[in-house]
Amino acid sequence: MKFGVMGTGQVGTTIGGKLQALGHDVVFGSRSLEGGKASRVGAETGIRVASHQEAAEHGEWIVNALPGEHAIASLTGCALDGKILVDIGNYEAAVDGPIAMPLGQALQAAFPAVRLVKTLNSVSAHLMVDPDSLGADHSVFLAGNDAAARAEVETLLRAFGWRSILDLGDLEACRAMEELVPMWMRLFGKFGDPNFNLLVVRQG
Amino acid sequence: MKFGVMGTGQVGTTIGGKLQALGHDVVFGSRSLEGGKASRVGAETGIRVASHQEAAEHGEWIVNALPGEHAIASLTGCALDGKILVDIGNYEAAVDGPIAMPLGQALQAAFPAVRLVKTLNSVSAHLMVDPDSLGADHSVFLAGNDAAARAEVETLLRAFGWRSILDLGDLEACRAMEELVPMWMRLFGKFGDPNFNLLVVRQG
Repeated sequence: MKFGVMGTGQVGTTIGGKLQALGHDVVFGSRSLEGGKASRVGAETGIRVASHQEAAEHGEWIVNALPGEHAIASLTGCALDGKILVDIGNYEAAVDGPIAMPLGQALQAAFPAVRLVKTLNSVSAHLMVDPDSLGADHSVFLAGNDAAARAEVETLLRAFGWRSILDLGDLEACRAMEELVPMWMRLFGKFGDPNFNLLVVRQG
Repeated sequence: MKFGVMGTGQVGTTIGGKLQALGHDVVFGSRSLEGGKASRVGAETGIRVASHQEAAEHGEWIVNALPGEHAIASLTGCALDGKILVDIGNYEAAVDGPIAMPLGQALQAAFPAVRLVKTLNSVSAHLMVDPDSLGADHSVFLAGNDAAARAEVETLLRAFGWRSILDLGDLEACRAMEELVPMWMRLFGKFGDPNFNLLVVRQG
């Protein structure tokens, strides 16, 4: 399948590399095509780096791995309608401040014809695409207003290796998911490494 | 030890009953001494229900199990200085709205001489005092600016049966802890029962 992965930071390149390894056809969308970063990312991943518009044009699915504060501006003018948008983004300000409107809901409101599915935003980047490397069960959440799109994203998560997948229903769950960010940061500070996650434990 | 437990809802009565079962001397603080609720709680628990001021006077330790929106007003005028205040509270508005200032930090600012320790606020009431009943490991968090107070509260949590206790450090961690409320609510809605919690999983 063809993917446009928006963002060439740690999350974007990790997801893009995994999608390519699974046999998908990936193009990165970046706002910094001039200078060293785009060519470095291209060289390191073997994946073409293009503008956000070109990457969106390429993708049957879109992945948002942009900083939350920049996502709407960067995606404006991109060919998103009717496509699944996997939103992995978080507001950087959510680390230690309130979220007025969760990013997933803000993106869905800005681009009403996209099939947005929020997922993976509370997971360390290396675990997003290799959950087994933690050596124990742990959980990932997903939410979206389109149940068929949620099911398709769940299939992708299973291809990444996920087993504990909690479908939380519609995008009202974005607050629950995005407000996990301060806990991730606090645990990262406590442990000094990103080799952790949360598991939802239910009475058997 | 003597405890003043503020709040006679599900959380307060559950904590008060457990403290009594452990041999502590408990008085509940309530704003509704007239009418049926105080006598019903007193009859059901065998614990005296008094005003917030009387319960605070009684307690060497104070437990805040009041709705977050009412906590500062209810605790104003109470004898808190120098005592450990175990804050289990959450803002009801935090279920689906932003937290401008976390309750734990707001209480510490309002009562600067209290030794506030935030804990248990993300856990179903029955699991707070009987974590083993879930049948698998799960986690509780704690935070406070006074490390000695955190250690004393950790000892109490162990007496409740907790083993996975994550000390997150100072009260800046209150946002991380209080922003777990929307996830608790969403999982409660998904599962239809409160028999669940989160476990922090770390690479071994």
